[in-house]
Amino acid sequence: MAATPSPGDDLARLRLARTEGIGPATFRRLLARHGSARAALEALPGHAARSGRSLTPYPAAQAEREMAALTMLGGRFLFLGSPLYPPLLSLLEDAPPALAVLGNPALLASRQIGLVGARSASAAGRRMAEQLARDLAGAGLAITSGLARGIDAAAHEGALAAPGPTIAVVAGGLDEPYPPENAPLQARIVAEGGAVVAEAPLGTAPLARHFPRRNRIVAGLVLGVVVVEAAPKSGSLITARLALEAGREVFAVPGNPLDPRARGGNDLIRQGAHLTETAEDVLQFLPEAPRDLPLFAPRNTPETQPEPRAEAPSPPGEPSKVLELIGTTPVAVDDLVRRCQLSAPSVQAILLDLELSGLVETLPGNRVARSLS
Amino acid sequence: MAATPSPGDDLARLRLARTEGIGPATFRRLLARHGSARAALEALPGHAARSGRSLTPYPAAQAEREMAALTMLGGRFLFLGSPLYPPLLSLLEDAPPALAVLGNPALLASRQIGLVGARSASAAGRRMAEQLARDLAGAGLAITSGLARGIDAAAHEGALAAPGPTIAVVAGGLDEPYPPENAPLQARIVAEGGAVVAEAPLGTAPLARHFPRRNRIVAGLVLGVVVVEAAPKSGSLITARLALEAGREVFAVPGNPLDPRARGGNDLIRQGAHLTETAEDVLQFLPEAPRDLPLFAPRNTPETQPEPRAEAPSPPGEPSKVLELIGTTPVAVDDLVRRCQLSAPSVQAILLDLELSGLVETLPGNRVARSLS
Repeated sequence: MAATPSPGDDLARLRLARTEGIGPATFRRLLARHGSARAALEALPGHAARSGRSLTPYPAAQAEREMAALTMLGGRFLFLGSPLYPPLLSLLEDAPPALAVLGNPALLASRQIGLVGARSASAAGRRMAEQLARDLAGAGLAITSGLARGIDAAAHEGALAAPGPTIAVVAGGLDEPYPPENAPLQARIVAEGGAVVAEAPLGTAPLARHFPRRNRIVAGLVLGVVVVEAAPKSGSLITARLALEAGREVFAVPGNPLDPRARGGNDLIRQGAHLTETAEDVLQFLPEAPRDLPLFAPRNTPETQPEPRAEAPSPPGEPSKVLELIGTTPVAVDDLVRRCQLSAPSVQAILLDLELSGLVETLPGNRVARSLS
Repeated sequence: MAATPSPGDDLARLRLARTEGIGPATFRRLLARHGSARAALEALPGHAARSGRSLTPYPAAQAEREMAALTMLGGRFLFLGSPLYPPLLSLLEDAPPALAVLGNPALLASRQIGLVGARSASAAGRRMAEQLARDLAGAGLAITSGLARGIDAAAHEGALAAPGPTIAVVAGGLDEPYPPENAPLQARIVAEGGAVVAEAPLGTAPLARHFPRRNRIVAGLVLGVVVVEAAPKSGSLITARLALEAGREVFAVPGNPLDPRARGGNDLIRQGAHLTETAEDVLQFLPEAPRDLPLFAPRNTPETQPEPRAEAPSPPGEPSKVLELIGTTPVAVDDLVRRCQLSAPSVQAILLDLELSGLVETLPGNRVARSLS
């Protein structure tokens, strides 16, 4: 069934990923529905007409320029649904459709531990991060972090010192290292067998709003996250929470309560994170795979398993019939199919358009709800 | 039934407590059996004959001298079984038969929290201990510690600063403050409404072997113990373990793993101790009474409830019959009574003599076993 991907497929994937109005969940749904990014792109005008929304495919020339620029930098794209895409990350409902990677892309499929913490870390905290990273890298794990000042940089450096592989997930584009003083570290990571990953297009300056997505990717790539120093309400704690939600292990290094940077880690421990003093404390609780890894649901390869397509657009009136059944309380798509007396493919087609129109949003566990925005 | 205690009763209690060969458990058993310390003292020659062991009552003149000396210092004795004896401490199987107290003895019956830690504490550790003690004393708890250098001293000082009551349990005699530089602190505790407690007789220089008993008393007095800084295998960890065994809560302040003084507390947290950053973390888990407080078993007042006495010494041969049934695996006294076909009072009498002879030891839960020593 699945055709061998051609270079044109990647271009179509990038265009679909960069099209305004198509977020990660919609990307996944369009791929699943149409079987390929190319087919999904071709179907966009129809979806636009039915959803009453402008859905202009990202210009081919612009996507081509971005691909060429990334190639010039020595990088490449990994697309959700293609074999090299990191399998753990693909488990997230909102996994990034396109990842730009410098360095060794195969590393993203290896067993990783996230190591994150305060930018304004103490000397002791940086030493701890470096030591943990070195020991964990020595035990065969790739060390994943965010290339930030403080703990992140110490984690990458500790891994390189092992010597071992390390992965930096950056908030902006790959050509906009942030903070600027870590540009040499980013280059070193690539030169020494590691990888640098970005969801944002080349040329994107990292803004505050990009960091939550960056943290989400760190959480999605790893088997567990170690928090070394973190103030209450810091980004590191968000990464830990995201990791927990994704079924990954959370580890925290305790610290003196008089130091505000210890509060976040201590709180995590109080809430059940593994108290971590040495690499051994991490290794003994690190699973082979996340707790809720669905062994028989290869979400990673939707392009090889397109859903049955509705051959004709749904008759007028039916979308509103489906929409009436959807409230702000999430409802299972299966229940919806039963209640609206339409075929499953018709309901799927209608839902996709409702989603594209912004009226409905898809939720984890194949459920939908009215959009609150 | 219970006679009003006379001054002579205290003398008898002290003599019984100081008699060589009578440890805390035997003291309790003799009191329970004979109804009063005076009667137990009178019965000692009979026990000695039956157990084949010399049991010379502590000389009355020497006990009188000790009582007079303690009175001169402004102190008094509290005896196990008398109303002022600290009720939580009396729950320990090996509660000290006699406690010498300077200051306010009634304080020992109040709700207490233990605060212990490293002698070679860091400045941050001392500050944390002082702050916790001040806040916990402010919340109405008495702060109990061991008058040692470092964390102990900071805990007492924090309580005094609240201002609030504090209790120092010392390893040597009350007239041998240790370490010498804390003699002024001991005096201040007494002067400012606190109490200083010793199990050892006056004139006892504190030796290494006295400290485990001191730690045991701290654990027995309190509703919970907070460990602030503690190296692995330190006395503070022993206090925490003893507290846990006595059904008290254990709290530990986390610390940076690179500091060896943080290891003990971090280990405790890993094993389930409450992670503690502020007094609030302690107060929310501190019970009104220990988990296994036997509400309807007033062990505190054995003198008012003597067990039925065997009127006659047991017939020859019966002690060895009972001894045969006791191995190194603990056996319940009730089972023993059933199996040896003697009356319960006879078995109790035989057990007491076997215990005094050193052949058998009493264990928690009314069980006995062959002595291993």
